[in-house]
Amino acid sequence: MPIAIEELNNTNCKCYLLTKGSFAILVDPVRERLETYRQLLEHRSLKLVKILETHTHADHLMLNRDARQVLQAPIVMHRNSPSPLVDEHMDEGDEILLDGEIIRVFHTPGHTLDSVCLVVEGAVLTGDTLLIGGSGRTDFPGGDSGTQYDAVTERLFKLPDETVVWPGHDYKGNTSSTIGYEKQNNLRFLNKTRAQYVELMAGLGLPFPEKIQQSLQINQSGFEADEVSFPLVTDLQKISEISAQDLHALLENPERPRLIDVREPEEFVGELGHISHALLIPMDMFQKRLPKLLGYADLPIVVICRAGARSAAVCALMNQAGFRSVRNLQGGMLAWVDQQLPVQH
Amino acid sequence: MPIAIEELNNTNCKCYLLTKGSFAILVDPVRERLETYRQLLEHRSLKLVKILETHTHADHLMLNRDARQVLQAPIVMHRNSPSPLVDEHMDEGDEILLDGEIIRVFHTPGHTLDSVCLVVEGAVLTGDTLLIGGSGRTDFPGGDSGTQYDAVTERLFKLPDETVVWPGHDYKGNTSSTIGYEKQNNLRFLNKTRAQYVELMAGLGLPFPEKIQQSLQINQSGFEADEVSFPLVTDLQKISEISAQDLHALLENPERPRLIDVREPEEFVGELGHISHALLIPMDMFQKRLPKLLGYADLPIVVICRAGARSAAVCALMNQAGFRSVRNLQGGMLAWVDQQLPVQH
Repeated sequence: MPIAIEELNNTNCKCYLLTKGSFAILVDPVRERLETYRQLLEHRSLKLVKILETHTHADHLMLNRDARQVLQAPIVMHRNSPSPLVDEHMDEGDEILLDGEIIRVFHTPGHTLDSVCLVVEGAVLTGDTLLIGGSGRTDFPGGDSGTQYDAVTERLFKLPDETVVWPGHDYKGNTSSTIGYEKQNNLRFLNKTRAQYVELMAGLGLPFPEKIQQSLQINQSGFEADEVSFPLVTDLQKISEISAQDLHALLENPERPRLIDVREPEEFVGELGHISHALLIPMDMFQKRLPKLLGYADLPIVVICRAGARSAAVCALMNQAGFRSVRNLQGGMLAWVDQQLPVQH
Repeated sequence: MPIAIEELNNTNCKCYLLTKGSFAILVDPVRERLETYRQLLEHRSLKLVKILETHTHADHLMLNRDARQVLQAPIVMHRNSPSPLVDEHMDEGDEILLDGEIIRVFHTPGHTLDSVCLVVEGAVLTGDTLLIGGSGRTDFPGGDSGTQYDAVTERLFKLPDETVVWPGHDYKGNTSSTIGYEKQNNLRFLNKTRAQYVELMAGLGLPFPEKIQQSLQINQSGFEADEVSFPLVTDLQKISEISAQDLHALLENPERPRLIDVREPEEFVGELGHISHALLIPMDMFQKRLPKLLGYADLPIVVICRAGARSAAVCALMNQAGFRSVRNLQGGMLAWVDQQLPVQH
C-alpha cells in the first residue's frame, strides 16, 4: 500500500496530508487552519510523525512555536531554511520514512534556496518549484531561475511520465497533473532553453504579494511582528553584504569589524556554531538592546544569522537607527560553514 | 606633592576625591550624589581620570551606565567584581597612576571577595576592610572573617604607623585615623588571634541592611530592579551550587546539564570566554525568555555568570518558576578560568 495523499485546504494555497495506516505527515500546513488539522488528525486517530515544509513561504504564516506545540510533531525543512523554529533539517538525497514507506528529498532551489520536492511512490509534491502549467516565481531574495530550470528539467522531468504532480499552489482550480502532461504542456519549459527560461522569468514583472512583510519575514525569523517592526523590502534592498571569505580575511585585520549574531541562543552554540567573538543579540531582543549597541554606531559591524535573512532585516533596522557601517554576512553561518571557516560552540 | 585626599559625602557612607594638579580620581561615589560630583569637578576644572570602587557595595547604589556617561571616566574594580559595568579590572599589586603618583592596590578580601585597599603616599583608603575602631561585616555572600583578619593584620598593619586611614564608612562621626592608632586601639584586632576574630565576627548578629535587595543585587548585576524582580535573600540562600571542577567532570557525561550563561554578550565572548555549548541569556532578558526556557524545566541546569552573583539570582528565580534541577556555578567563570578549564570565545 503506497502513501495516500490528500489536499486539505481547498484554496489556492495547498496543504497535503500524507498517510500510511495510522501514521501521518503534514506538508505545508498554514497556521490559520491549525485547529482544522488538529481536529482531522484526532477524528481519524492519525498519529502525526512530522511536519514537512517544501520551502519558506511568502504568502501565508507557517506554524509558530505555539502551533507546533498543538500538533506535537517536529518541523522538518531543508538545511538552507533561515528559520530558528526548524527541529530537523533535510537535504538532497535524504529519505524520510512514513510507516516504512520512503519519501525521497530532492533539493530544488530556484523559488527559494531551501525549496525541496518530495517524491513518493507514483507521485511528487512539487511545492513552488513546478506548478501546473507554471513554476514558482524566482524574484524573491535567494531566487534563481537557472537553478529552477535545472531542477525541473533535470530532476522532476526525469521521473516517470505517469508520476502524479501535486503542486504547492494553483490559481486556476486545478488539483493535480502528471510529469508527462507537464513535459508536453507546461509552456514555461516546453521547447525552452535555460537562457530562454531565465529571460522569461525575469520579464514576468509580478507584483510583490500583499502580505510579504507580514509573512515572509515572520516565517524566516520565527517570531511575530509585534516583537520587532520588520523593515520594508525597499530598505532590505539597500543593505550592504559581505561574503564569508571576505569577512574571514577582514577578521585577520587589527581593525576587525564588530560581529553581531542575531540567532537564538540554541543556534549560537548549536550545530553551525558561531564566529569567534561575535556578540549574540537574538533578533527579538534587538530593539531592547539597541540603546546599549549605540556605542558601536560609528564602528564597522557585520550582522550574522543562519542563512542571511534575519541578519538582513537587522542590518536594515540598524541603518535606520543611524549605524554608519553595517554589512550582512551573505548566506549567514551556512555559507561560513560551507567554506569550512573556523567556528566556536 | 603627594595626592590630596578629600571626603565628599559628609555622611556615614564616604566618597573620596583624590587629586594631583588638575587630575582627579573618585573612590566609591554614590549614585544619588552624581550631580554634586559633576559640578564640583567642573567648578574646579578637574579632569576625572578614573572611578575606583573599593568593593561591591550593599548599602548604596553605585554608578550605572547613565551615570558613568555623565562623568566620562572608566569604572575600575577588582577582578572579582561580579558586575558587567566594570571597564577595567585591578588586582593585587597593580599600580594605578594619578599624574605620575602611584596608587597601590592591596587585594583584601573579607568583607567581599572583591575588596581592595588603595595605598598612596602617607595614607590608605581602607574601604570596608578596616574601619575606625572596627571592620567591615563579613556575613554577606563571599564574606570571610579569616581572610579579612589576614588582610588587616598582615597587610594594613604592616604599613608605617603614621599612615592615615580613610575608611569607607564611619557611624560615629570620625573622619580619619592612623595605622598606629588602630593597631593600639581597634578592639576587633587588639590581642585577638585569627580564630578569636572569626568567632567574634560570627557572633555580631547584625541585621541585614534595609536596602540590600535594592542595592547589592543591582550593584552586582549592573541593572535596575524594574527590569527583573530580584529574589529575596532567603530564596538566594536556598539555591544549590556546583564547583567548577565538579561541573567540568559532569560535562564529560552523556547526560550533561544544560548550561545557561546570564552575562552580557560582551562578557560571553570577552576575556573570560564561555563554557562550550552554554546558552547566553543575559540577565535582563531572562524574564522575556522564560517561556522559551520552560522546555528545560525538568532537565538539570547549571546557571553561570562572572562571579556567581547574577547567576545565583537567576537560580532563585528559576526555582520559583518551577524548574526542578537548577544549580549555580560557584564563583562563576572567574572560578572556572582560575582552574584553567577550557573556554570558548
